Amino acid sequence: MARKTSKLKIIPLGGLQEIGKNMTVIEYKDEIIIIDCGLSFPEDEMLGIDIVIPDITYLIKNREKIKGLVLTHGHEDHIGAIPYVLKKLDIPIYGPNLAIGLLEIKLKEHRLSNNSLNVVNPGSKIKLGNFEVEFVRVTHSIPDACALAITTGVGTIFHTGDFKVDYTPIDGQVMDLHRIAEIGSKGVLLMMGESTNVERPGYTLSESNVGHTLDEIFSEATSRILIATFASNVHRLQQIINAAYKNGRKVTTSGRSMVNVVNVARNLGYLNIPENTFIELKDINKYQDHELVIMTTGSQGEPLSALTRMASQEHRQIEIKKGDLVIFSAHPIPGNEKLVSRVINQLFERGANVIYESISDIHVSGHACQEELKLMHRLVKPKFFIPVHGEYRHLKQHMELAKKLGMPEENVFMLSNGCVFEIDKDQGKIVSKIPSGNILVDGLGVGDVGNIVLRDRKHLSEDGLMVVVVSMSKDTGKVISGPDIISRGFVYVRESEDLMDGAREVIKKSLETCENKNMREWSYLKNTIKDELRNYLYEKTKRNPMILPIIMEA
Amino acid sequence: MARKTSKLKIIPLGGLQEIGKNMTVIEYKDEIIIIDCGLSFPEDEMLGIDIVIPDITYLIKNREKIKGLVLTHGHEDHIGAIPYVLKKLDIPIYGPNLAIGLLEIKLKEHRLSNNSLNVVNPGSKIKLGNFEVEFVRVTHSIPDACALAITTGVGTIFHTGDFKVDYTPIDGQVMDLHRIAEIGSKGVLLMMGESTNVERPGYTLSESNVGHTLDEIFSEATSRILIATFASNVHRLQQIINAAYKNGRKVTTSGRSMVNVVNVARNLGYLNIPENTFIELKDINKYQDHELVIMTTGSQGEPLSALTRMASQEHRQIEIKKGDLVIFSAHPIPGNEKLVSRVINQLFERGANVIYESISDIHVSGHACQEELKLMHRLVKPKFFIPVHGEYRHLKQHMELAKKLGMPEENVFMLSNGCVFEIDKDQGKIVSKIPSGNILVDGLGVGDVGNIVLRDRKHLSEDGLMVVVVSMSKDTGKVISGPDIISRGFVYVRESEDLMDGAREVIKKSLETCENKNMREWSYLKNTIKDELRNYLYEKTKRNPMILPIIMEA
Repeated sequence: MARKTSKLKIIPLGGLQEIGKNMTVIEYKDEIIIIDCGLSFPEDEMLGIDIVIPDITYLIKNREKIKGLVLTHGHEDHIGAIPYVLKKLDIPIYGPNLAIGLLEIKLKEHRLSNNSLNVVNPGSKIKLGNFEVEFVRVTHSIPDACALAITTGVGTIFHTGDFKVDYTPIDGQVMDLHRIAEIGSKGVLLMMGESTNVERPGYTLSESNVGHTLDEIFSEATSRILIATFASNVHRLQQIINAAYKNGRKVTTSGRSMVNVVNVARNLGYLNIPENTFIELKDINKYQDHELVIMTTGSQGEPLSALTRMASQEHRQIEIKKGDLVIFSAHPIPGNEKLVSRVINQLFERGANVIYESISDIHVSGHACQEELKLMHRLVKPKFFIPVHGEYRHLKQHMELAKKLGMPEENVFMLSNGCVFEIDKDQGKIVSKIPSGNILVDGLGVGDVGNIVLRDRKHLSEDGLMVVVVSMSKDTGKVISGPDIISRGFVYVRESEDLMDGAREVIKKSLETCENKNMREWSYLKNTIKDELRNYLYEKTKRNPMILPIIMEA
Repeated sequence: MARKTSKLKIIPLGGLQEIGKNMTVIEYKDEIIIIDCGLSFPEDEMLGIDIVIPDITYLIKNREKIKGLVLTHGHEDHIGAIPYVLKKLDIPIYGPNLAIGLLEIKLKEHRLSNNSLNVVNPGSKIKLGNFEVEFVRVTHSIPDACALAITTGVGTIFHTGDFKVDYTPIDGQVMDLHRIAEIGSKGVLLMMGESTNVERPGYTLSESNVGHTLDEIFSEATSRILIATFASNVHRLQQIINAAYKNGRKVTTSGRSMVNVVNVARNLGYLNIPENTFIELKDINKYQDHELVIMTTGSQGEPLSALTRMASQEHRQIEIKKGDLVIFSAHPIPGNEKLVSRVINQLFERGANVIYESISDIHVSGHACQEELKLMHRLVKPKFFIPVHGEYRHLKQHMELAKKLGMPEENVFMLSNGCVFEIDKDQGKIVSKIPSGNILVDGLGVGDVGNIVLRDRKHLSEDGLMVVVVSMSKDTGKVISGPDIISRGFVYVRESEDLMDGAREVIKKSLETCENKNMREWSYLKNTIKDELRNYLYEKTKRNPMILPIIMEA
């Protein structure tokens, strides 16, 4: 009887009401499977943070239930948090060939090994406990991307993964529309659908469109060509290689992730490089400029990336020179516009010709626009729908889209990370919340930077700090030396001597007041100094540096 | 004879190879006039900075030559630095009516007054020394925008100002194409042309297009309408007011600059508000939701703006409620995308319906696209050309555009701020450089935050700081108390006690080593502590906080 009342739980740990760190828990009875385990990049206010990963407290508490982690594809926002999670949990991992290949590099970099990594080919099924997971081929900006059809005790869950509908994919591996239609016919209880491009009407262009543009550009170019794109976009790399080969150019790579991905993709057969076409970066001087294409990282203007270093003359092997043709084959991710623009400006200043999206058609998105999303909804025709992978605005628009397709309002759900969503054959609802959120990774520290530390960093970044040191006699309570003042990030001290003299006077006066009042507790002294000094500095400068009073006993 | 060899100098102090703080010096013999005097907003790495203004060292040195400052229009990037400049230089100012009106508010806020402010109507001329300056009406996203035709001893300089070619402007004040053609016929030596939209092919749509969209949206809306746009876009405000009136709604304003601009524009006759249509914000509760339109600041997601505060429930008078219709009638300026997106998400979360550029046509640019720029080039047909108002990429593309129109390469010039460009009837060239660059304004400080302070703020923002205090005996040189450690923005201390204990050990060991070596100079001690502690912390955390060792003598 208990069996009848069992409900399926869907618990997103990341990717809801945000872009990135996609991770979802599917739980039925005593079994859990996890879909994806990605990272996200820090928001502007997360000062000093390297990456952000999901909170897996819930999984650690329920570790004995976990049957496995399944991966839809090999992008960072789907696999990037795995090394951190594996340090806490030993989970078997199942994913398409390329995703597993990219994950292996990542684990090696983290000195993790001998994990249970299992390749699952698109089109095949695995059993994880009582769950059956079918990997269904979709098209996306990385080969081997899959949607997942998960058979559970209450019905089939269909997770679209990230996808676009590309009828002419570069690798000839078309999206398995037939199988999706078949799954839809048999009945899908719940679809979780990605929402990245839901605001864009129409269709995303096929990746093959970029190939034509590249071919045109390459055939007219007479100089060296440098081309920046996402390393993981193996289709794009293949088209660059094709265009290079056709136009009699050699290809090489620059930037760690570009080198890594090209190696993995080549070894696994995802990248087809004609003989004598690939050369090592160190050998470029053996060739004429018009014989070279350099595929590089840095399409987002990342400060430490290869192209950015070339543009600012900090790259060991490559210097941008007059006449170089540099192509940005990518769209700036929101927030990166100014970084990209800065690199473009620098490249122009060095005399390069730069081709970028504003002036040419050299990039297409990897995500489905509205008409493709509608196709997916129509084929899968789920009873319930949860939009995933998007900020609130995207999820909201995706809900509207589903409703326009005829889905009843009560069957469409807005979830947030940490929601425990329970569903049976008849209805679904949010029943509780579990811990979720952003775990910040800063250097070796995972989770040791929280709100207090970030608040201090923000304060320090805006107005700097002033340290005040006073040494006081243990016996008499009188000042022995000081007050000494040290400031950093506040004002240029040499030009602010009056201000500093004034500050010292304010501190002295505060100390005297305390002495006269016979108030000698250090905490009282410190607070008085802080308050008086803050008022003085704000009045004089309209700035509010962090003030750190230190009293030494001697 | 000396007269013959006199050359005209063009010296940009801002706006070249950057967006913002437009300011140009025109000098002939002993006379200087200045075109515009704008501010720019800080780049991401200018932590804690409020605004950026041009370096006017050159003008201060040559103050007796200055005949006047002429303004093309009233946008911040053309008038925003004037209060700061007036504190150092007393200059008569000439500009169109609205620009002067907006400037007056600004001067009042800075408690500056009794300056020589002079209104010049588009179509008229003024004499400044031997310069004759003609203000020629153009169309732009603010009324009363002008190009300038400046007659000088060597020929006519034509400065386009900011413009678009709007054949159906809202105020009916069409661009004076006839006069521009006439000036072109008479011969223009040099054109300085704005470059903001040079990367966009085709034409910018007329402002009147937005009116149709707004009217449609307003006529279908049944709830309260909030609409965010640039306060200075008086044409947009007029169209909002028209749509409100037509649909039986009252209009009010929120946000300081919105209130200010509406007041000024209304008083000067640039904004035509039908009787009984405008209400005070405090009176909105007297009306039904469907009778209200609130024009607000915050179209760029600025953290302290009215709309942002409404979205985060921090606004005193207005709270966003379910059903509110919020319209972003603006395009996010590069760098503001994420701020805007955050506000959109918050508004959706509060239950508002949000209309923004990705999903509707509710904004047009104020700047000329390629075909409009070509029209300007053809009409003015200058001998020489300097692209202005743009990053390097824009200036470069504008040079290419000029060359495609048949201008010889040697007549087109790439300048940067501080270049002294000399020109006579036959040729132009850069002859020298004068001081120029970014003067940073932080609170009351103008120019007291420089690279060292910014570098420290960046360092502090990324990894925080650790202060180490040791008190040592004057006589024996031995440690009396300490080492004490205070950290901020580094790690969450309560969870890092081992790390802190380890740090104290490292410092003690450093001090012992110094003592054993008999090295007692404080600078040596401090450097040793810094080095050892830095290594220790980096090894343990891969972070690099700022370390401030302080030694107190007792």
